[in-house]
Amino acid sequence: MACELCTNKHPNELWRNKDVYVIDANEPLLPGYIRVVLCRHIAEMSDLSRESRHRLSDIVNLVEQTMRQVMQPDKINLAAFGTMVPHLHWHVIARFKDDPFFPSSTWSAQQRKTPEDVLAQRRLIARRLNDELVKKLNEEFGP
Amino acid sequence: MACELCTNKHPNELWRNKDVYVIDANEPLLPGYIRVVLCRHIAEMSDLSRESRHRLSDIVNLVEQTMRQVMQPDKINLAAFGTMVPHLHWHVIARFKDDPFFPSSTWSAQQRKTPEDVLAQRRLIARRLNDELVKKLNEEFGP
Repeated sequence: MACELCTNKHPNELWRNKDVYVIDANEPLLPGYIRVVLCRHIAEMSDLSRESRHRLSDIVNLVEQTMRQVMQPDKINLAAFGTMVPHLHWHVIARFKDDPFFPSSTWSAQQRKTPEDVLAQRRLIARRLNDELVKKLNEEFGP
Repeated sequence: MACELCTNKHPNELWRNKDVYVIDANEPLLPGYIRVVLCRHIAEMSDLSRESRHRLSDIVNLVEQTMRQVMQPDKINLAAFGTMVPHLHWHVIARFKDDPFFPSSTWSAQQRKTPEDVLAQRRLIARRLNDELVKKLNEEFGP
């Protein structure tokens, strides 16, 4: 079966270098949800060399920093599961006290509805996040 | 309110150095579930210096490696949420195709019951994991 993350150009791709590509997860209820995907088809962090692991951590960290600056979330969530798609990818998620799942995980049952106006405003800011991410990632890690 | 992770001695603690302590999460349905907790009360990975972040990544990675060697899971899950307790801690979870949540997250709805004999056997192996972790962490990062 073909791996959906083994691709040279993902439809939601924001940025790519030789190691990693970055996509907007486009989750309608969770504006500010980015995925950092390894280009190579590798399942686990511990399959990477120490150097590659630190480099990936640096990219995830820049995404997190930029997300905090632009979106001012109440918390950041980081996760690498790969139980659905065993190709290494990191979820970087801006969490807000009024998001549908807070304080549970975004994989848990929904417990509220975020007011529509709040969500609309947050989606605008998430678009600005995408622009900032491309700029910052180019500055730090090259195009 | 006191932070439950700000402690000099956690009841389930396996190992500690000056930066980090490691605990057995003791999840009855998920044998092979370890948490790596920062000693300092810091919320986000991006609050750490690059050096401290890499050092924490190295410890999480040794836990992951040892878990893979001892438990032979189908997948590893890594997560740092902190939406419940905003004190930086990593979940390192051995996932098996017959665990109650696979392939969903362990924070998702339970979808099956693992056979009792499989679970009992796996709990024994998880005890061996704890012993191996203490040994490996001492070897790599000192007591």
